[in-house]
Amino acid sequence: MERASRQVNVRAATPGDVPAVLSLVRELAEYEKALDQVVATEENLREDLFGPRPICEAIIGEVDGNVQGFALFFHNYSTWVGRRGLYLEDLYVRPSARGCGLGKALFERVAQIAVERGCQRMDWMVLDWNTSAHEFYRAMGASGMDEWTMWRLKGDALRRAAKA
Amino acid sequence: MERASRQVNVRAATPGDVPAVLSLVRELAEYEKALDQVVATEENLREDLFGPRPICEAIIGEVDGNVQGFALFFHNYSTWVGRRGLYLEDLYVRPSARGCGLGKALFERVAQIAVERGCQRMDWMVLDWNTSAHEFYRAMGASGMDEWTMWRLKGDALRRAAKA
Repeated sequence: MERASRQVNVRAATPGDVPAVLSLVRELAEYEKALDQVVATEENLREDLFGPRPICEAIIGEVDGNVQGFALFFHNYSTWVGRRGLYLEDLYVRPSARGCGLGKALFERVAQIAVERGCQRMDWMVLDWNTSAHEFYRAMGASGMDEWTMWRLKGDALRRAAKA
Repeated sequence: MERASRQVNVRAATPGDVPAVLSLVRELAEYEKALDQVVATEENLREDLFGPRPICEAIIGEVDGNVQGFALFFHNYSTWVGRRGLYLEDLYVRPSARGCGLGKALFERVAQIAVERGCQRMDWMVLDWNTSAHEFYRAMGASGMDEWTMWRLKGDALRRAAKA
């Protein structure tokens, strides 16, 4: 018996995708054991992706015409390179849609956008226990910057530092 | 004998500060054992800080009227928060100017800017061997996100992924 091959497609997100993007953001956060930290709303995402001053961008991954994944990114900056880079905030494919190359297609499209825009680097954060992500990204030629740690100030501590 | 107290001042960077900012970027990179990775020029920095579409911002720290440090930052984005945050790319004070509170003054000014703009988070990367930076940032209320690692794709590997 032959298994029908699945049709993978990557396209720019549109305002109509916002509810699906928020669902995928929440599914990814749940996988990352942080669903309680997601306070974003459809209104936030719509404004930030498609408002008068967009501050991030997204692409959508489909399998057989159904939305099954996404990537969301924005530009960062490096004082060493003296140029903007591309920061991949989220890349996610639903478990049921894995194994047909959608993650690779999304990742490659983001890399293409980075190269088209003259970026020298693409950066993103990965949880240390997410070994399947490490394998995937290593296969794409990436490596972990093991000598660096991200530090964060937030909430009350941020307001205290600001004396606000 | 009394040691004269030093006058610490923090102000926005101006186009005239670009040569000093690049010098400080290079001094920080040297401290981080990565001077060979700095390819930025004054032209890059001038365009990116003060061109028609600025993509980063800087503040300058002075002691007794002399430039002795800086902070450079831009906005990032969190799909969990649904809002832009503030990413601190560089914070540096010359060794000869340490101990008079300039680093704290620069850090607090960046935190103020974050709070004024409604950011919920301020993020930055620190080298794992830079224990004096860890102490400083812990004293400011920050913590390291030890369960995450930054991953990077660059140069030929980026172009390969982009099939460019």
